[in-house]
Amino acid sequence: MAARRIAVLTSGGDAPGMNAAIRAVVRKGRDLGLEVLGVRYGFQGLMDGAFVTLDSRAVSGILRHGGTMLGTARAPAFKTAAGQRQALEQLAAHRIDGLVVIGGDGSQTGALALSRQGVPVVGVASTIDNDLAGFDITIGVDTALNTAVEAIDRLRDTATSHHRAFVVEVMGRGSGYLALAVGVAAGAEVVVLPEVPITLEEIVAALRAAYIQGKAHFILVLAEGAGWTAYTLSDAIQAADPGFESRPTVLGHVQRGGPPTVFDRLLGTRLGAATVEALAAGEAGFVVGLARGRVTRVPLAEACVRTSKVDPAFYELALVLAR
Amino acid sequence: MAARRIAVLTSGGDAPGMNAAIRAVVRKGRDLGLEVLGVRYGFQGLMDGAFVTLDSRAVSGILRHGGTMLGTARAPAFKTAAGQRQALEQLAAHRIDGLVVIGGDGSQTGALALSRQGVPVVGVASTIDNDLAGFDITIGVDTALNTAVEAIDRLRDTATSHHRAFVVEVMGRGSGYLALAVGVAAGAEVVVLPEVPITLEEIVAALRAAYIQGKAHFILVLAEGAGWTAYTLSDAIQAADPGFESRPTVLGHVQRGGPPTVFDRLLGTRLGAATVEALAAGEAGFVVGLARGRVTRVPLAEACVRTSKVDPAFYELALVLAR
Amino acid sequence: MAARRIAVLTSGGDAPGMNAAIRAVVRKGRDLGLEVLGVRYGFQGLMDGAFVTLDSRAVSGILRHGGTMLGTARAPAFKTAAGQRQALEQLAAHRIDGLVVIGGDGSQTGALALSRQGVPVVGVASTIDNDLAGFDITIGVDTALNTAVEAIDRLRDTATSHHRAFVVEVMGRGSGYLALAVGVAAGAEVVVLPEVPITLEEIVAALRAAYIQGKAHFILVLAEGAGWTAYTLSDAIQAADPGFESRPTVLGHVQRGGPPTVFDRLLGTRLGAATVEALAAGEAGFVVGLARGRVTRVPLAEACVRTSKVDPAFYELALVLAR
Amino acid sequence: MAARRIAVLTSGGDAPGMNAAIRAVVRKGRDLGLEVLGVRYGFQGLMDGAFVTLDSRAVSGILRHGGTMLGTARAPAFKTAAGQRQALEQLAAHRIDGLVVIGGDGSQTGALALSRQGVPVVGVASTIDNDLAGFDITIGVDTALNTAVEAIDRLRDTATSHHRAFVVEVMGRGSGYLALAVGVAAGAEVVVLPEVPITLEEIVAALRAAYIQGKAHFILVLAEGAGWTAYTLSDAIQAADPGFESRPTVLGHVQRGGPPTVFDRLLGTRLGAATVEALAAGEAGFVVGLARGRVTRVPLAEACVRTSKVDPAFYELALVLAR
Repeated sequence: MAARRIAVLTSGGDAPGMNAAIRAVVRKGRDLGLEVLGVRYGFQGLMDGAFVTLDSRAVSGILRHGGTMLGTARAPAFKTAAGQRQALEQLAAHRIDGLVVIGGDGSQTGALALSRQGVPVVGVASTIDNDLAGFDITIGVDTALNTAVEAIDRLRDTATSHHRAFVVEVMGRGSGYLALAVGVAAGAEVVVLPEVPITLEEIVAALRAAYIQGKAHFILVLAEGAGWTAYTLSDAIQAADPGFESRPTVLGHVQRGGPPTVFDRLLGTRLGAATVEALAAGEAGFVVGLARGRVTRVPLAEACVRTSKVDPAFYELALVLAR
Repeated sequence: MAARRIAVLTSGGDAPGMNAAIRAVVRKGRDLGLEVLGVRYGFQGLMDGAFVTLDSRAVSGILRHGGTMLGTARAPAFKTAAGQRQALEQLAAHRIDGLVVIGGDGSQTGALALSRQGVPVVGVASTIDNDLAGFDITIGVDTALNTAVEAIDRLRDTATSHHRAFVVEVMGRGSGYLALAVGVAAGAEVVVLPEVPITLEEIVAALRAAYIQGKAHFILVLAEGAGWTAYTLSDAIQAADPGFESRPTVLGHVQRGGPPTVFDRLLGTRLGAATVEALAAGEAGFVVGLARGRVTRVPLAEACVRTSKVDPAFYELALVLAR
Repeated sequence: MAARRIAVLTSGGDAPGMNAAIRAVVRKGRDLGLEVLGVRYGFQGLMDGAFVTLDSRAVSGILRHGGTMLGTARAPAFKTAAGQRQALEQLAAHRIDGLVVIGGDGSQTGALALSRQGVPVVGVASTIDNDLAGFDITIGVDTALNTAVEAIDRLRDTATSHHRAFVVEVMGRGSGYLALAVGVAAGAEVVVLPEVPITLEEIVAALRAAYIQGKAHFILVLAEGAGWTAYTLSDAIQAADPGFESRPTVLGHVQRGGPPTVFDRLLGTRLGAATVEALAAGEAGFVVGLARGRVTRVPLAEACVRTSKVDPAFYELALVLAR
Repeated sequence: MAARRIAVLTSGGDAPGMNAAIRAVVRKGRDLGLEVLGVRYGFQGLMDGAFVTLDSRAVSGILRHGGTMLGTARAPAFKTAAGQRQALEQLAAHRIDGLVVIGGDGSQTGALALSRQGVPVVGVASTIDNDLAGFDITIGVDTALNTAVEAIDRLRDTATSHHRAFVVEVMGRGSGYLALAVGVAAGAEVVVLPEVPITLEEIVAALRAAYIQGKAHFILVLAEGAGWTAYTLSDAIQAADPGFESRPTVLGHVQRGGPPTVFDRLLGTRLGAATVEALAAGEAGFVVGLARGRVTRVPLAEACVRTSKVDPAFYELALVLAR
């Protein structure tokens, strides 16, 4: 059944480009004759009935801002049957017949729960960790990559002393995708990932090899899920070979913010538009995202699973290029 | 026949990411046992025999720089049979048995000419205009888009006066792809493309409609090939409705430069690596580029044709989102 | 007499850092026990009585945004006695006993008019043109300089072809200050200013000299008030010596926007705080700005005069450094 | 006695803008008829006789790059009489009659030692820590400030969840200058400095006060010399009030790099030119730097002392503005 009145929420970790998706949901939705409400602070706001009207002006100027104008929050209560019942009651009370859920695996798990109870839900694949099954790249990844690489470009400038190693910790939870892409794009000498075991001895050996080859300084990109912190790895390197002066950098949530790149704005825009086209056509129960360069639908039950996107061939290429 | 000793050149308009491709050709080539030479200043340098040895250190640190470390130049003489003969002689004299040509349609036309005379050539799709047939996006486009959109983001800040219109001219030669993508990503009120006829009256009507709708200021993105300049369009708008104060911005070659984005570094890296894998395997006669999210080979004769990538559905979406 | 209830307005061309000044007026004012109102759209809004209450939350998050949250507008009517009477009536009706005027020479001329009629006014020196007498640097200049130089840095990347000249037109109205500072900071080969006569022949001679010296490409920085446009100068160079391929860039209002630099945020903050300290102490009738590294007061009648800040010694240094 | 043949070196922590100073030394020096040599890797290179000829072309294109083209290194041996004798011998052997030392307090201490032994030395005040006595701001500070604030601007975007605190550690060794300026420019809720004692209880109380006032998220800027790390402070906050989710960011050497801002390019340029003007006029024995907006000379013995530039009045203003 074609939706008439829909709601949109953002949930979980925010990602640059979420606002582009919200804007497209609102403006394309309106073009298709839908009424669009926003939900403040994710599933918690859904349980609380925190709806706001979103007309064309309400989303004016948000395209270029990181974060999400709707806010996000943790919602442990939503994982319970009582919490979900509360959300369903709010949806019914506000006569919502379609829901757009913008977020990562946790958010799409929530979306799946509502979908199973009969709510027409369409998800939007959005997480800077790029760990959603079924999609090549999700909203926010491109911006996060550029932020991290820009920081490392700055480190390169300052590396005009010999024998200096910089350990840069990047986000990604259990996935090394971000760290690997950052490492290749920044020309890192070493990349340390959860997916590929590497010992401290191997790391130090790689640094020594690069030194012998004539390199004066070294960038190590460390995925946050790889078993070290920037501090512990930095200290360990210096302890293992006092010849290296090693310094940590931890970007933390800096990687989540900033104006979205063009890629993330266009991706958010196209995915947001795709959700309302689906709901207006009476189609739901899936997540929209990018696969093989095209907007693609993946069933909610499949898309809410985390997966690693580290391509072994690309890791091999990284090793070759670092030499 | 597998290549042993190859040369790489960049030709035509430079594009951020070309250096990433050169670096990958050198380092992956070396890993595959190839000797790699660089050619300075494109086909002109090829005719002149301007070869330089490229070892791993020679391409150190270039990944993050725009432009091309090899230089480019116009080479009208290369379009003649005499010029091509000269290039063939240089290739033979330096015992080159494989050539990588990084550039756009003009460059790949040159590559095709050499290929037809028996040189194993692999092209790399590289032009900020994104007008190469067979590929979704070429090297340099992503950086150029971000540069233009960042400039327009700045214009948005300053548009705190009523009734002000900014005309921003972006590159793209005959293609409106860049202007359309910039327009959508920057939330432009009007986009003027070579592919879609629009009269001055329609442009002014769109501005007036946006004003009535409550917008205080207006961004117009103008493709360079659309029959206006930023100046003539800006003046025409103000003449047509003196209520608007209109101001031009012309980014010009600023769009060609700057540190490549992560997308362009990774694309350049993957395409560069793909060329030497092909040549080392005895495969040639095509251009490598990105299509449907994957590295794809398109025969030289097909890839050297220019084509417009303006998707009418996306243009329609742009109109919807501007409201 | 110490002020109790003050108003703040921004007028004329906006400048990054104006928001920092507004925020400091509000928060420091409140700390000093003042009530603070904002006036929307400059002197026009003052005549119209467009006052808004500004509490601490109202200025939250504005520090990092270019433009002015209060808006600006042209106000030709304010130049008449009737217009000024209207403004005085509005100030009286809203019981305003102190006024902060953030802007350049035109704005401070308006401030002077009100001051002469008994309104306690303190101006804030704010214009990207840096042409206010009595001050070394005004709000917005530092951001505008960085925006222009960043654009030229991108041009440098792309200048990997021989014999290419880029003409970059920068703002500054009648003053060459911006163009000279941009030229030195960007390493321009030639700087064309209103204050220093230079013929086309001299320009072309400078380019040829640089070429003979081994430079492959050339940046010309052109002040908007110097008698050329980027287009006319670019065309003239190419006509004078067809060996050069010359390309124009016109940044236009892009230079006015963008997140303010730290310098402009700190300057805006300090000047904004200084205005309310003065008004709370019963002092008025001057403009606050930066001179010799310190917050300085200049009488309104002196500060509303435009002046050129091009230092001949610095211009000579620019010539030396370009060689 | 007027110098004829001078050398320039960079020492200690590098700073964006050092290259601008080197370039000005070379080009202005040449204009004054001086021969200019560079010394690689600071005082270590001086002892080793690592001289390179610097002509105009050698410094081409360095203006826009961070770091130092000459490199820096630790030189513990230079602190000994034997090391200094070695340096003096090298200076004599290469007939150097003037030396430019670009760096911070440690570097100027080395410069003083040579000066006392009769070498005409002029120092250039250059350290991102801004802790050199006698100067208002040194080379590199402005760039470091902008890098840190830009990172915090990104954090602001992502702070769309309630009750989130971000602890950002910035450089500055024993001085809180950088942290205070960053805090004010980024609108931080709390700034933790070495110069101003603050307890964990006071920090948490400030966060709670901001929360009650309606703020949803909080930025704490932490000076590296203030007795915490970003990690320990972040953990302590969360332990003290589990209602806050706290996250650390450590920029580390990222703050040292990046293209210099216009301010640092112009400052480096002016100071570099001032050194050769002095040496060519037979004047030496001091450091040049910026004080009260002008190039100023401070005797070497005074300038090599570290001092804090935290202004208590500015700290008070920071507290007011955070409310």
